[in-house]
Amino acid sequence: MPVAPTQLGKDLLALEPLSAEQIRLILDTAQPFREISERAIKKVPTLRGQTCVNLFFEASTRTRVSFEFAEKRMSADTVSIAASGSSVQKGETLVDTARNLEAMRIDMVVIRHGASGAAQFLAERIESNVINAGDGTHEHPTQGLLDLLTLRDKFGRLEGLRVCIVGDVLHSRVARSNIWGLKKLGAEVGVCGPRSLLPNAIDELGVEVFDRVEAAIEWAQALNVLRLQLERMEAGYIPSLREYNRVFGVTRERLERAPRDLLILHPGPMNRGVEIDSDVADGPHSVILEQVTNGVAVRMAVLYLLAGGRPELAEAAKGRGGDA
Amino acid sequence: MPVAPTQLGKDLLALEPLSAEQIRLILDTAQPFREISERAIKKVPTLRGQTCVNLFFEASTRTRVSFEFAEKRMSADTVSIAASGSSVQKGETLVDTARNLEAMRIDMVVIRHGASGAAQFLAERIESNVINAGDGTHEHPTQGLLDLLTLRDKFGRLEGLRVCIVGDVLHSRVARSNIWGLKKLGAEVGVCGPRSLLPNAIDELGVEVFDRVEAAIEWAQALNVLRLQLERMEAGYIPSLREYNRVFGVTRERLERAPRDLLILHPGPMNRGVEIDSDVADGPHSVILEQVTNGVAVRMAVLYLLAGGRPELAEAAKGRGGDA
Amino acid sequence: MPVAPTQLGKDLLALEPLSAEQIRLILDTAQPFREISERAIKKVPTLRGQTCVNLFFEASTRTRVSFEFAEKRMSADTVSIAASGSSVQKGETLVDTARNLEAMRIDMVVIRHGASGAAQFLAERIESNVINAGDGTHEHPTQGLLDLLTLRDKFGRLEGLRVCIVGDVLHSRVARSNIWGLKKLGAEVGVCGPRSLLPNAIDELGVEVFDRVEAAIEWAQALNVLRLQLERMEAGYIPSLREYNRVFGVTRERLERAPRDLLILHPGPMNRGVEIDSDVADGPHSVILEQVTNGVAVRMAVLYLLAGGRPELAEAAKGRGGDA
Repeated sequence: MPVAPTQLGKDLLALEPLSAEQIRLILDTAQPFREISERAIKKVPTLRGQTCVNLFFEASTRTRVSFEFAEKRMSADTVSIAASGSSVQKGETLVDTARNLEAMRIDMVVIRHGASGAAQFLAERIESNVINAGDGTHEHPTQGLLDLLTLRDKFGRLEGLRVCIVGDVLHSRVARSNIWGLKKLGAEVGVCGPRSLLPNAIDELGVEVFDRVEAAIEWAQALNVLRLQLERMEAGYIPSLREYNRVFGVTRERLERAPRDLLILHPGPMNRGVEIDSDVADGPHSVILEQVTNGVAVRMAVLYLLAGGRPELAEAAKGRGGDA
Repeated sequence: MPVAPTQLGKDLLALEPLSAEQIRLILDTAQPFREISERAIKKVPTLRGQTCVNLFFEASTRTRVSFEFAEKRMSADTVSIAASGSSVQKGETLVDTARNLEAMRIDMVVIRHGASGAAQFLAERIESNVINAGDGTHEHPTQGLLDLLTLRDKFGRLEGLRVCIVGDVLHSRVARSNIWGLKKLGAEVGVCGPRSLLPNAIDELGVEVFDRVEAAIEWAQALNVLRLQLERMEAGYIPSLREYNRVFGVTRERLERAPRDLLILHPGPMNRGVEIDSDVADGPHSVILEQVTNGVAVRMAVLYLLAGGRPELAEAAKGRGGDA
Repeated sequence: MPVAPTQLGKDLLALEPLSAEQIRLILDTAQPFREISERAIKKVPTLRGQTCVNLFFEASTRTRVSFEFAEKRMSADTVSIAASGSSVQKGETLVDTARNLEAMRIDMVVIRHGASGAAQFLAERIESNVINAGDGTHEHPTQGLLDLLTLRDKFGRLEGLRVCIVGDVLHSRVARSNIWGLKKLGAEVGVCGPRSLLPNAIDELGVEVFDRVEAAIEWAQALNVLRLQLERMEAGYIPSLREYNRVFGVTRERLERAPRDLLILHPGPMNRGVEIDSDVADGPHSVILEQVTNGVAVRMAVLYLLAGGRPELAEAAKGRGGDA
């Protein structure tokens, strides 16, 4: 079914299919919701009596807790399911799990899954709203959105902004959501990492490619430093953590040689001393904790919009904490 | 203490001790609660400020989530405890666990346990209401109730209805709750499965016995297809999954040869291609997802009745979502 | 920052740094909250819209559930995180975990951790209130407080009361919180256990030391019997469970020889037949279940006071369940 450009549709599966207008809609809606989290009473009745399931086939405390608090601050009823100990262990298919949740009259499913495309597979089969919380190496759209919101806050605009993603771009759903979101909103995107961890079809992505982190730092206004998955070392993509840090680590020394101050983002959890040094992570240009704060707000906005909330009412919803 | 025939008493441990009138009371009460789950605001304030513990010594996502949503839609406060990671690991006895929950002033305990009789053992020792969510090979009364509600909905009555349970009847608490519930409400019950998976004292159960699934299909108006526990193969009860499917699998071909359309039930999670084929599970006569929907409603009704709610007020409770 | 003697400050990390006045403040505040748990509607709106995280790096169903119900009865939104399956497994540091929670605008963190000092480490780094739910062998202040409340209830006063802690005092955070709390409120404290399980610097603690449990029983008015950690046997501190029971077990026979009835406390979970016999645990002088009831009340009081609630209003808060 066709979706009006100022609406989101039924699901949030990826940033690639969204228009710039839709992405801006989410970012604009997130801002009033961010204020709710700063109040003494962090709660609005917007989703009262609606039910959400957080279906996490891969462990992720950070993302799950962020979604749980977003849901609870909207007054939704929420249940979280970890794959271990679930029917999945009994060999149930994903679609059976999904249909069962739907039959329980769940309004929304937040799904994290190891297989690329799992969220879409689910969304096509159930009427509940589906939010992709990371599927394989495909996308992690709410992470992309929170990165966009953080960058837009700091720079005032995304058009023409030069953002470089550093690390294992090949396997990273965070990278993919960032690339799509940043390009749609007019930013210039660079990627930097070992050749073995960059996509083969890198030229088709329409991004700048940097083999040396020094060159990326010279070019960029912001770095989004990816978490290095330790299993990459075992798989032979990188020789050692020490070697990775020596060649691609984002260190204070390297940043001090840059022609300008660079904003530093990281999706967490960090490997301090591997892809990022502690004095960078904790330094004055790090916005890593702002990203976390924005994550809750972006997720509240997505929940709100998928539930049919009108963006012009988000501001008003904000004020209705008293009658929850 | 004696319980009036129109009341449930303190606990729901099994269908065997209930009267037909008590079972009908639960089914009748479930109907208005089912409508709550269909609303935008799926919540009534009926159990606000009451506290439930879901105490699951065996993993069961489906049943736990169904109970959790039933509790939350009644506005109860709920905590779920999985056996792994609990005091049970520290060697605490079940009765100590129970007394501790009672001392925390829990109103209701939903318990699933691998030992037959565990729910009753608990119920006799604490004042909180106890709901059996499956105890060993004994009973799983809310599953039996949701099966009854689904059948009654489709056929309009249970009296004289011919229902055959197919599979591992010997080890199945679902089978046992079905047999008791169906017979009390006047249905005729059949069982069908490998001889090694039928109870020895099968004649005492007062049920028809079918060695061949074709004969069961010819006789029955509805089949309740049990999940095959894969450990039965390891234990030597059946030679192989393929062989089980060949002899006892509920397939489209077999159903097409039946003299009438049969309603198909399955408690889930399904082993597609083993005890049931996908085109049956997803076919026009399958009510497997209605069972799941009815599961939440039946559990809401049980919570409501045990908490002392009067059945004639359930309909009224339904309308009170607005002031939760 | 200096804290007024009638306030608690930002965190509850230990009983050692608290004044007698502060401890009495918590105990006095717990009493009205205990009544809430006895009501049909066990809920007050005191912490509505505030968010709590229960961060349990060590498994503890009992303490976690007690905190969860305390939080829910205050109407807080709560999320529990177990170490297994969390970012901790991905190598994240405690301080990064904490800062992330803070960035999500969590109001309170309840932490249990295997390392002594973990709660303080956290409290110094985040603005959220921190409650220590047990850190290594250091303290478990809410357990100490609930023991104090239970003793004060039964004896009417703590001044001059003779309380003996029996068992593995060396490794016990419960013992440590008890010793500090009891002494501050004027009780006399004894310890009794195998020499290998008593602290070396026992004399500095200002407590009576008993090598024989018979002597402790003769001296004391109340025994707080610690749980024997089975790993102590493997570590060689005690020869066997049977031997431990023979020499230090709190048995009916031993108690019957006492010059007076002794009140019996145990923090649970119990090893029945090891440190305590069942007829003592379940006997007329056991207050083990009262301890559990008081645990919820004490935790509600601590949450209330840390959130800035004024003690004189706790009584009033009690009555406000109706408009939650």
